[in-house]
Amino acid sequence: MTTKEAIEKLNELELKNFALGHAMGIMSYDDETVAPKNSRMPRGKTMGVLSEMSYRLTTGDEAVGLLEYLKEHIDELGPEDRRRVELWDKSFRELKAIPVEEYVAYSELTSTAGSVWREAKSRSDYRLFEPYLRRIIDAQRRFAALAAPDTDPYDYMLDKYEEGLDRKRCDAFFAALRSRIVPLLERVKAAGPVDTSFLSVPFPVSAQRELADKLMDIICLDRDSCIIGEVEHPFTTAFSGYDVRITTHYYERDFISSMYSVVHEGGHALYDMHSDRRYAFTGLDGGVSMGVHESQSRFYENIIGRSREFVGLVYPELIRLCPKLAAHSPEDVWRAVNAARPGLIRTEADELTYPLHIMVRYEMEKAMIDGGADTADLPEMWRELYREYLGVEVPDDASGILQDTHWSGGAIGYFPSYALGSAYGAQLLHRMSGDIDVPGAVRSGEIGKINGWLEDKIWKYGCLFRPSELMERAFGEPFDPKYYTDYLERKYTEVYGL
Amino acid sequence: MTTKEAIEKLNELELKNFALGHAMGIMSYDDETVAPKNSRMPRGKTMGVLSEMSYRLTTGDEAVGLLEYLKEHIDELGPEDRRRVELWDKSFRELKAIPVEEYVAYSELTSTAGSVWREAKSRSDYRLFEPYLRRIIDAQRRFAALAAPDTDPYDYMLDKYEEGLDRKRCDAFFAALRSRIVPLLERVKAAGPVDTSFLSVPFPVSAQRELADKLMDIICLDRDSCIIGEVEHPFTTAFSGYDVRITTHYYERDFISSMYSVVHEGGHALYDMHSDRRYAFTGLDGGVSMGVHESQSRFYENIIGRSREFVGLVYPELIRLCPKLAAHSPEDVWRAVNAARPGLIRTEADELTYPLHIMVRYEMEKAMIDGGADTADLPEMWRELYREYLGVEVPDDASGILQDTHWSGGAIGYFPSYALGSAYGAQLLHRMSGDIDVPGAVRSGEIGKINGWLEDKIWKYGCLFRPSELMERAFGEPFDPKYYTDYLERKYTEVYGL
Repeated sequence: MTTKEAIEKLNELELKNFALGHAMGIMSYDDETVAPKNSRMPRGKTMGVLSEMSYRLTTGDEAVGLLEYLKEHIDELGPEDRRRVELWDKSFRELKAIPVEEYVAYSELTSTAGSVWREAKSRSDYRLFEPYLRRIIDAQRRFAALAAPDTDPYDYMLDKYEEGLDRKRCDAFFAALRSRIVPLLERVKAAGPVDTSFLSVPFPVSAQRELADKLMDIICLDRDSCIIGEVEHPFTTAFSGYDVRITTHYYERDFISSMYSVVHEGGHALYDMHSDRRYAFTGLDGGVSMGVHESQSRFYENIIGRSREFVGLVYPELIRLCPKLAAHSPEDVWRAVNAARPGLIRTEADELTYPLHIMVRYEMEKAMIDGGADTADLPEMWRELYREYLGVEVPDDASGILQDTHWSGGAIGYFPSYALGSAYGAQLLHRMSGDIDVPGAVRSGEIGKINGWLEDKIWKYGCLFRPSELMERAFGEPFDPKYYTDYLERKYTEVYGL
Repeated sequence: MTTKEAIEKLNELELKNFALGHAMGIMSYDDETVAPKNSRMPRGKTMGVLSEMSYRLTTGDEAVGLLEYLKEHIDELGPEDRRRVELWDKSFRELKAIPVEEYVAYSELTSTAGSVWREAKSRSDYRLFEPYLRRIIDAQRRFAALAAPDTDPYDYMLDKYEEGLDRKRCDAFFAALRSRIVPLLERVKAAGPVDTSFLSVPFPVSAQRELADKLMDIICLDRDSCIIGEVEHPFTTAFSGYDVRITTHYYERDFISSMYSVVHEGGHALYDMHSDRRYAFTGLDGGVSMGVHESQSRFYENIIGRSREFVGLVYPELIRLCPKLAAHSPEDVWRAVNAARPGLIRTEADELTYPLHIMVRYEMEKAMIDGGADTADLPEMWRELYREYLGVEVPDDASGILQDTHWSGGAIGYFPSYALGSAYGAQLLHRMSGDIDVPGAVRSGEIGKINGWLEDKIWKYGCLFRPSELMERAFGEPFDPKYYTDYLERKYTEVYGL
């Protein structure tokens, strides 16, 4: 075998891997958007079969031989192929450590747990979900112990969503945030509330659908490659840059919820759609980590979407679609969408209190994985942490521990990415502002300029660089959370006239 | 290996086969309903990979060894396992005859041809589609020659959709129909037209959606296992009895089109949903042939759905959703939905002229497969046949040769199933009427009684019996098309007062 032949074999293998992931992804999307209730069992069966095929593809003899060969000839490879081998080797080692039966059983477990969680949430009854969560935690701990016996299990999980992240970095990061956010929030509270009552004006769902289309146009999402679906819990899923789906929900009395879901998910979609096209169907395609992904989505949602200029840009459309809003100025709307108020629900939180919601989940996950916590005690722990971090009383499971989908899918260690992503976004804004007039571009509706900058610095690279290297290249300096806390201080001083 | 172990292996193999078919089916459904335009290329790649996996699963060494073992021990198997082996052996022989590269290339070809056909139809330009049709015909002829060198190629294709059907049976069947339908149609024409103008009353799409839900309830479709989607060309797809999707389209000025699509597709869905649950994930699950499938769908659409009693049952809902219809009596509506009139479009044809549309396609397919016809000449042949059989002039490709999706998916030999299914349905009605009061059951909304009879005689058996055996058991006598022509004569005599 020559190196060239080996790379051709790698291409084939990655294409097969793409195909199985693509098929499973479409089945999940179908499940989330339209599938009938009774499809759960047969889908579980199919997911089990396809997961096993995927497992055998990555860990089978042919793949192992190829991997060994490529590792021996790593010096002959260019940086892109080298990274493909590195990424594949990583996922090979993770998978190979898990016996195939356990891997398949786990994939069926999380497929079922998702449906059970939805039902438990709709009934606000954690007890329905608890046995599934217990099994997911056990499996995750076991997988971590098998795959990385010398690593702290929670560090291993953090690294899955943000290569290189560990609890030491998280602790320092969250401490830095907390020391600035808590006193800032006190000053905001003392300044008295901002009027947000008019945001619950009835806004017909059909008009909200029109608004969503308009927002997708504003941020330049190519509709030939991106559709929008309706679900209870918005998410984005990408099957190569040619086919990305964002989702949202519509509540007549809360148009803001859908509006910012669309912009948030749109940020994910833009990132997924703009990997270098040469990376399609290889391990380099798509976003490199959840931290970088959230840096893009939260950048569009908050830094762009909740800016005075963006609200001004969308305002004429808002009052056209919902004439009652015309009684309020763009400045009123801007202040209202930035009102800071400790609440119960992460996805509805303002930028200032949002990291506190993440810190709650970070503490919960550490307790879950370190093994001190019994799953039966988790709702009480949740309530205590919300009391401590946000000063609010959690009335029920639905608005408490059951609010997020992540754990039902086995995503433990994901949440810190959201806060990290927010901080990345603020540092990107700082750097971007040296190259382009960001407020000016938003004001004139030239979001394409911002997209172009991000495509050039982040998106096009796909998974080529590790997240920390990618971000340092984009920043031109090491990551520093002070850009984020400075940004929050500047913004809230302005919103509340502190 | 014991026979018991061999059956367990067969279960595993059929489950894997189910899983790949399920995944590809969901991807096609996604394509038809929501997928963005640019998803075509990556979906083609994935379909290619999964088809190859499916091919290798059915024809690989392990499968062949198992099949040989089971064939040697066939006498030790019960009738269900024996039929599974027979069905698998049939598909093995068909697949094995085709080289894997050709099989994969063909599956990518039909995946692309579907999109091209949609575009060609929307532009009414056959030339766009012609090269794809030519390649599909060539591939189909080649596959037939490889798989069954001693069989007439078109007979081989007919058998794929209705095991045991061949052109000899078709010729006799169509001749019998034509000899009764043509003079009957002459008498209908002489009787003068029925008023159908009020069927184009504006019927809001949202109200049509409500009507579709109501119709699904009336025919007792379990909504936990069956959803309804929106597409241009309605179809039904089933992924086991737990998950079936029907589809329809809505035109504000043609509520009848959607109404009878829902009932027609609902008939397919009922059949697919009621195989014995023990057959799930095996080769025995689902409908046994397209002829039997169409017998169910056209039974619900026409024999039940276009009966006086069914129109009476739905009438209150129709006038509630579209009050302008109240100016017309249930009898007016019943006559209007049964008006016979030679037209251009098969799916909009009445029961009487419908078989003539099928005969056109039958003649076309024979010409295509026998090899005398150049694909460039097909539109002209289509126009001539419509002139001859229906006496109408075809103005363009969209309402001519491009109207049906079947050939773009490689389904040559499918069309005769529709006419055969209609005839099966009439004979089923005859037999059913000996056991239950069919008009009475429809009048009182007890469609469940009819469903129960069909479940007992047809649905529950899945693929256990060959189609002809299944139908003879249900009929209690051999198939005889006179029940169909008698039914048509009786019905049109009544509608037109002949």
